[in-house]
Amino acid sequence: MNAAPSSADHPVPNAADAALIAVDWGTSRCRAMLLDKDGGLIAEAESADGIGPLGGLGHEDAFERLTSGWPRVPVLMAGMVGSRQGWREAAYVPVPATSEALAAGLHRFEGSDHRALAIVPGLVLRSAVRDGDVIRGEETQLVGLMEEEPDFAGIAILPGTHSKWAAVGGGTISDFQTFMTGEMFELLARKSFLRHSVAEHADDIAASEHFALAVRRSVTEGLPFLGAIFSVRVRQLLDGVSGDDNLAYLSGLVIGGEIAAARDARLLDADQPIRIIGSRSLARAYSAAFAVAGHHAEARDGSALVRRGLVRIARANGLL
Amino acid sequence: MNAAPSSADHPVPNAADAALIAVDWGTSRCRAMLLDKDGGLIAEAESADGIGPLGGLGHEDAFERLTSGWPRVPVLMAGMVGSRQGWREAAYVPVPATSEALAAGLHRFEGSDHRALAIVPGLVLRSAVRDGDVIRGEETQLVGLMEEEPDFAGIAILPGTHSKWAAVGGGTISDFQTFMTGEMFELLARKSFLRHSVAEHADDIAASEHFALAVRRSVTEGLPFLGAIFSVRVRQLLDGVSGDDNLAYLSGLVIGGEIAAARDARLLDADQPIRIIGSRSLARAYSAAFAVAGHHAEARDGSALVRRGLVRIARANGLL
Repeated sequence: MNAAPSSADHPVPNAADAALIAVDWGTSRCRAMLLDKDGGLIAEAESADGIGPLGGLGHEDAFERLTSGWPRVPVLMAGMVGSRQGWREAAYVPVPATSEALAAGLHRFEGSDHRALAIVPGLVLRSAVRDGDVIRGEETQLVGLMEEEPDFAGIAILPGTHSKWAAVGGGTISDFQTFMTGEMFELLARKSFLRHSVAEHADDIAASEHFALAVRRSVTEGLPFLGAIFSVRVRQLLDGVSGDDNLAYLSGLVIGGEIAAARDARLLDADQPIRIIGSRSLARAYSAAFAVAGHHAEARDGSALVRRGLVRIARANGLL
Repeated sequence: MNAAPSSADHPVPNAADAALIAVDWGTSRCRAMLLDKDGGLIAEAESADGIGPLGGLGHEDAFERLTSGWPRVPVLMAGMVGSRQGWREAAYVPVPATSEALAAGLHRFEGSDHRALAIVPGLVLRSAVRDGDVIRGEETQLVGLMEEEPDFAGIAILPGTHSKWAAVGGGTISDFQTFMTGEMFELLARKSFLRHSVAEHADDIAASEHFALAVRRSVTEGLPFLGAIFSVRVRQLLDGVSGDDNLAYLSGLVIGGEIAAARDARLLDADQPIRIIGSRSLARAYSAAFAVAGHHAEARDGSALVRRGLVRIARANGLL
């Protein structure tokens, strides 16, 4: 799993301007950005040395491999690198939390060469109705969003394997919730009995009328998720619905189910502004789902917000 | 997968009284019962030659192996043996359906030795809100229930990998719905990220306070299933909840989620009598869940009802 770095080991232009290495280190990938004092990008490197593949070991070696040849400037990291299986555990900060509270909760340590290293803390929520919830990594994108749109008040959605919804406003993250949407889709489409009724892949799911039908049923008509999924099989059996169309339908049930659950959990109301932070294809699917559900949602580039959030937190701590 | 029959190949006592072989042939197992003209059990045999392992081939051979030595009386079968992958496809009967309608929809054919064979049809429902649904096998248990309790009017629940709920009354099956509850539990407990947070096995889940808490949150407090499951991980991470307790909690979320979904789909109202038809351990878990949810449910033995249903349908067709 130790894929070669994508751009390190080459001479870095403008290395003298380098002021910070900002790192987005998640479960499956590690992405390092060499930044100047204004937060401008000098160089970038990425590897498959995620926290998962590393299995709790060799973080410093993996980091040194990825950034070899780069100036030895301070390092600020965010993501699963701060979990128990990460390089160092960075304690969670409770919500409601501001960017300042996250910056103040930084876990600082030294590398074996005494380089200054730091990890952004995650967020924790305690809840009487569902015990609690945690975020690790997405808090930095939320800080980036609050930097980019200081007046934003609404819901930020970070879709993915574990989709995160956060209520943001007045410079504060006040609430959040995790939905295992991407994982649920993979389990149902690849590992369940329904795998025989859906295609492996389908183009442009977001534009499919079957996707829209499933979202409408889930969000508008209130079809319960657990009572809806078996119909993927029935549609194939009784109506000969194709695997492509059924994959889009299943995707609509899962994403629509997430939106309906967020609404039922009172995370979403009718008039909230919505930002979707993530990859282009996921943002497209979620935007289409929100349009069917009668909400307007705007997409933001997730990797740009990570960088913006890391720069904001680095500045608050004198790392930049 | 061709496990040896459990009791055939031995001399059958009272073979002269034999009048019917009644067969419950599902995805994973085949169970044959040699019955007298009153429906009394003379002999029984079971094998792992389910429709799944057979893969669409060799049904007659598997049946002959299982019942070798038995008198060559007429045969009535129910279950996935009547699916496209089964011995012969028995077309679905639409709901609302009576026992007479199911008996009239029998698929009759001859074995290679001209023995009279027949398969009970499944049930089909068309629905504007979720396309439709199908049952195959459980209809025979519902016929058995209507024989055993002719005046019953309420909900019959047949829990399992694919849990079936049916509205029964006045001798008619009027509505039904499938919930992929058992499969969802297996996917989450064994194949998802949550597998690290639950034990492989726990004793007496139905008596666990964690099971009850999850049912209460799902049914009484309206915690949405898709917004609840991530908390299994959070409970372990933040509160050190044990794998045993968390397995019970996850089981409560899935069964409670099923009950909440059935209520939201208007299959369940406050005062309906409920019968649970299934194995002892599943019936215990569902009874406990219904008690938490404020419903009284009575358990019925599933295998006794299959036999009763097969005898009822055989009589209506002159097979017995």
